[in-house]
Amino acid sequence: MKKLSILGATGSIGKSTLDLVERSPEDFEVVALTAASNVAALADAARRTSAKLAVIADGGRLQDLDDALRGSGCRTAAGQEGLVEAATGEAELVMAAIVGCAGLMPTMAAVEAGKTVALANKEALVTAGALMTEAAARHNATLLPVDSEHNAIFQCLAGSSSNHVARIILTASGGPFLSTTAEQMRSVTPAQAVAHPKWTMGAKISVDSATLMNKGLELIEAHYLFGLPSERIDVLVHPQSVVHSLVEFVDGSVLAQLGSPDMRIPIAHALAWPERIATPAQRLDLAAIARLDFEAPDLERFPALRLAREALEAGGSAPIVLNAANEVAVASFLDGRIPFPDIARLVESALEGNRRNGPSSLRDVIEIDGEVRGAVSMQIEERCV
Amino acid sequence: MKKLSILGATGSIGKSTLDLVERSPEDFEVVALTAASNVAALADAARRTSAKLAVIADGGRLQDLDDALRGSGCRTAAGQEGLVEAATGEAELVMAAIVGCAGLMPTMAAVEAGKTVALANKEALVTAGALMTEAAARHNATLLPVDSEHNAIFQCLAGSSSNHVARIILTASGGPFLSTTAEQMRSVTPAQAVAHPKWTMGAKISVDSATLMNKGLELIEAHYLFGLPSERIDVLVHPQSVVHSLVEFVDGSVLAQLGSPDMRIPIAHALAWPERIATPAQRLDLAAIARLDFEAPDLERFPALRLAREALEAGGSAPIVLNAANEVAVASFLDGRIPFPDIARLVESALEGNRRNGPSSLRDVIEIDGEVRGAVSMQIEERCV
Repeated sequence: MKKLSILGATGSIGKSTLDLVERSPEDFEVVALTAASNVAALADAARRTSAKLAVIADGGRLQDLDDALRGSGCRTAAGQEGLVEAATGEAELVMAAIVGCAGLMPTMAAVEAGKTVALANKEALVTAGALMTEAAARHNATLLPVDSEHNAIFQCLAGSSSNHVARIILTASGGPFLSTTAEQMRSVTPAQAVAHPKWTMGAKISVDSATLMNKGLELIEAHYLFGLPSERIDVLVHPQSVVHSLVEFVDGSVLAQLGSPDMRIPIAHALAWPERIATPAQRLDLAAIARLDFEAPDLERFPALRLAREALEAGGSAPIVLNAANEVAVASFLDGRIPFPDIARLVESALEGNRRNGPSSLRDVIEIDGEVRGAVSMQIEERCV
Repeated sequence: MKKLSILGATGSIGKSTLDLVERSPEDFEVVALTAASNVAALADAARRTSAKLAVIADGGRLQDLDDALRGSGCRTAAGQEGLVEAATGEAELVMAAIVGCAGLMPTMAAVEAGKTVALANKEALVTAGALMTEAAARHNATLLPVDSEHNAIFQCLAGSSSNHVARIILTASGGPFLSTTAEQMRSVTPAQAVAHPKWTMGAKISVDSATLMNKGLELIEAHYLFGLPSERIDVLVHPQSVVHSLVEFVDGSVLAQLGSPDMRIPIAHALAWPERIATPAQRLDLAAIARLDFEAPDLERFPALRLAREALEAGGSAPIVLNAANEVAVASFLDGRIPFPDIARLVESALEGNRRNGPSSLRDVIEIDGEVRGAVSMQIEERCV
């Protein structure tokens, strides 16, 4: 029995995690669950899994949570303090699945408590990669990637020493605009951008997939997770999204991880590692799929990928700026306020103007993040006036 | 420095092994080299690698070998006894690359001496799989597969426990007759059959690749190497031969090993395992390859694959009969004495008539092998009269 805490139990990754845990009740003991504000879903999950602690981030809803869990034997808590308790208590494995900057503090708390951390929060590595990995090394914490690409690489590496690795290759679906010209991209709509061909995802990440910024953010994550320099991390467009990523070794051998597009596969891997558990995910049938295609990414039509690589190579605060500027720009695109190519333009201009030092704490990360969001929002406002 | 012995140093696998060893002189100390009869090539390799022992299987050529190595400081030996000495001496790693039944005894000697054995001799597992793997377990020997497919699976497994594995999937190029109708196959020529689309190989193995018997033999090898039953070993046709094989895990994750069609990649893996060494093999460029295709094998047009699976499931002496009948039939096809589809027919008829017990020693294996060769040869003679 592995003692498990799920930070962000009511989101997409959290729900898939719960699905797997409930299918393998003999393998996991749920010690804590957290949610941002959805009291009903949190209480329901806590009862179903006999969780010992349920934490609601929104302190104003603690009373509702208490009411919902009355008689269940599940303790309740709220706010940042509650999240940190869920991240650091008796859990052996912490699923860090809180989306956005809200996940930074509890994720770091789990790392500093030396836990095994299944990392589904992208911001943790994109904006605080150096801080996070240094803390993991110092506190002997293990980081298990949940993102399908990074989980694929982790599986292919299987503990290989990094001097056996020539390079890692992140695959990208190429998004809905893989064959769209630069000219056409000026007039694509939010509805077109969120229609991801392979994975069902939220609007923001779907737009990131359409700009290839998603792959750029993953490039930065991969750098921190696997300790490889930018020039040893490649991106390969693979529209079918069957090969989730690859590792090339010094002998010319390439290992790849493949699977159906079902997040329960990488989640199950992180949950069970170093063992494996069964999942209900559809088995991969390559004879039925019949054909896999690959091409190099076009950095002219997809400048976001180039910008992310530049931010990674610049280091310091550049990845935080990249991420914050992108979030604001994507939200504005989704609101119909800016055209699609302006997402990358706004990110590029934010990076050009950046003179900030690298963060020396999560507080710095959050400060820089807020500052950049403010500046980019103002830039958009001014244009729209 | 790993002490290495190469059994079959002048054949194709032996030469590639020497090429790699000479590129990494700091990693290997060559303690013994053997050859069937090519004195000049053996002596040359022994001098180049400063081998301590050179063994010529053909006892009549020992004097020539002595002459060729005079003054080199390399000891010489000959015959079965010499081969066994090369297999069991001070080597830590034995590359077992003697082709055919001649390799059985020295390979078994290496296994019984508890060596790490890089296995490039197919017959060892096809005809004596149970004996070989039981001996390996008893004497604590490690078997490292060199065949590109089995090496791929070994890499994908990376030591995984077999209860994490759902199935393994051997890829097959499909050979030159992938799109040839059953009708057309009646008149294909040896020249057409040996024109393998992807790998440069000898005539016999090229014909096996054209009938898919090669994949059938690999199915049997895989069963013994990885301890999985027939129903958990699948075959998938993949004409580009880029994906060398795959492993599907219980969670739905699939790992695959890919690479350029260069045997130095799996050989280097076996030589260096659990480390890795650099090779001059061409790096895989998936963007340039652009497309990979997959389809299920057609067991109607390629009955050899069905026969091999039946022989594996029958067990006992059936795989020996399959292998021996196939060798004689392929030789007759190459000599223009029988049409292509008769290869599988002769194998099927040999299997149908088989009432032999399973082998309890290598002597039994060699006896059954000889008996079947004689019977099938006679059957062909009678037809041709």
